[in-house]
Amino acid sequence: MKNKAPVKIAITGAAGRVAYDLLFQIASGAMLGPNTLVELRLLDLPATMTELEGRAMELHDCAFKTLDHVETGSDAKTMFDGVNFALLVAGKPRKAGMDRSDLLRDNGALFKLQGEALNDVAADDVKVLVTGNPANTNCAIASAHAPDIPKEQFSALTRLDHDRAIHRLGKKLNVNVSSVTHMSIWGNHSSTMFPDIFHAEVDGENAWEQIDDMDWLVNKYLPDVANRGSTIISKRGSSSAASAANATLSAMRDWSCGTSGEWVSMSVATDGSYGVPEGLYCSFPVTVDANGNYHVVEGIKHNEFAQARISMSVQELVSEHEAIKSLGLI
Amino acid sequence: MKNKAPVKIAITGAAGRVAYDLLFQIASGAMLGPNTLVELRLLDLPATMTELEGRAMELHDCAFKTLDHVETGSDAKTMFDGVNFALLVAGKPRKAGMDRSDLLRDNGALFKLQGEALNDVAADDVKVLVTGNPANTNCAIASAHAPDIPKEQFSALTRLDHDRAIHRLGKKLNVNVSSVTHMSIWGNHSSTMFPDIFHAEVDGENAWEQIDDMDWLVNKYLPDVANRGSTIISKRGSSSAASAANATLSAMRDWSCGTSGEWVSMSVATDGSYGVPEGLYCSFPVTVDANGNYHVVEGIKHNEFAQARISMSVQELVSEHEAIKSLGLI
Repeated sequence: MKNKAPVKIAITGAAGRVAYDLLFQIASGAMLGPNTLVELRLLDLPATMTELEGRAMELHDCAFKTLDHVETGSDAKTMFDGVNFALLVAGKPRKAGMDRSDLLRDNGALFKLQGEALNDVAADDVKVLVTGNPANTNCAIASAHAPDIPKEQFSALTRLDHDRAIHRLGKKLNVNVSSVTHMSIWGNHSSTMFPDIFHAEVDGENAWEQIDDMDWLVNKYLPDVANRGSTIISKRGSSSAASAANATLSAMRDWSCGTSGEWVSMSVATDGSYGVPEGLYCSFPVTVDANGNYHVVEGIKHNEFAQARISMSVQELVSEHEAIKSLGLI
Repeated sequence: MKNKAPVKIAITGAAGRVAYDLLFQIASGAMLGPNTLVELRLLDLPATMTELEGRAMELHDCAFKTLDHVETGSDAKTMFDGVNFALLVAGKPRKAGMDRSDLLRDNGALFKLQGEALNDVAADDVKVLVTGNPANTNCAIASAHAPDIPKEQFSALTRLDHDRAIHRLGKKLNVNVSSVTHMSIWGNHSSTMFPDIFHAEVDGENAWEQIDDMDWLVNKYLPDVANRGSTIISKRGSSSAASAANATLSAMRDWSCGTSGEWVSMSVATDGSYGVPEGLYCSFPVTVDANGNYHVVEGIKHNEFAQARISMSVQELVSEHEAIKSLGLI
């Protein structure tokens, strides 16, 4: 293995809490498997360089056979040079007193710069996954500033919603999560996203037919999944870190290695299908083939309830898109 | 998989930083493989219960197919009931003004209690791995208070030292860590431990013959490995967490699943061999067979330099042992 050129993987926000878990998982081979040597590029603000060096030392201290070496830095062009994967974990969180356009502006500046840097120096086959919130719109900004990279090589994370939705459904039906398939998250990664359990299956049977309880769906399941992030903050005093890291890892692993026909949720470039306007990044159920290309699942028919929820979330995406346009970010 | 009874795994210090990484790795199947369902028991102080609940929620949010369920609690007997694995991560760190006997006394009380609880309620096949420092002596205390559990089912962690020693040797010879085998840590998990590179191999050849530089060994390699923990604290402002979690995971994975003939370092119950007094827990090179039984590598001949270093570390263990005896902890 040691004579093969390593796959280059950049992680932004590398000094943060989500990245701390993610880095070790990637280095251990959990993303690309035990036979792929990886080179990690840890990118974060200049003030974090000593922390990044400490993390690099800890990574080496694990003696991971799949880890070639680690580089640390604060310059996007240097860190993205030749990368095959870019995990854009950094995002500026919304603080007290900020309105949505402040949030979009601050993050927009970051993702514009990263999109430009990726466009200039990333490998042709680069896959870019945006975890930093607001993920879908950050992804749209980065992609817009990387015109030489096909839009299909960008995606935003809705896997944490997806996995939360699976767990809550499994719990309701008292089955292990491995019984739950065909879950899908539609729309924006925000509290408006819609987890479609009407098409989900449990042990190969339609899940909804076993539940058939709109009151539970509307007043329990959907709010539970949508508010899970805030519930965790209220318990832990800090936001989800290890679970967000795991979702990022799982999403990139599946996007690289394929899903063997199983559905996963990814926010991907829209082409007008399912009535979602072109030019956004919106979550759909997808399958990923063995070559690492995703395919939006076709032919799903939504009932009126689901369609109304999805339209609401898509409307939010449209409105964020208009906001970043008017801010001159795309 | 869902119909099989899950393997029960307790983790102490479950609200701490090392456990935060460790829990998700175990739940993901990284310890016992993709076909073993696990039940996690998160044990920590009463004040941490809300944090533990938050961690349990995040664990569920990962939709790990290998995770059956998570229990949280602060009572050792409840949490250890029927466990097949106990990862004793909690340890009270040495604080300013504490001398060694304060440290041994505080930790001793904790490990006495945990040993007694394991003795009363753990599964017959329980494997107990002590990560909390001073690990070797904490392990000796727990084992002494669990007379019904064979001493061979206890061990203390020297895997982080082992992996650090491998990485530093690989770096010196400019090879990937996968080339380095037959590494071994001897003695106590403290700055006195001795990483034996005289018997280490690189690509099947003796490593020392390629180095043959006592000045580098004495003034660079040994201090680098011994002081790595402090160096990381000085970089990060906090001690190794993810790398300690990874070492704990790797040690328990290898102890369970076997090492296919490769050497790893484990601190195990001494029987007088290699001149180490009986009744301690001391680090040796071991192999682990496919049934999960370790075997100390026999017949290693040390040169005078190595023997002197090892004796010094063993002497430290003996002196810690005398201290806990005089404190009435064993």
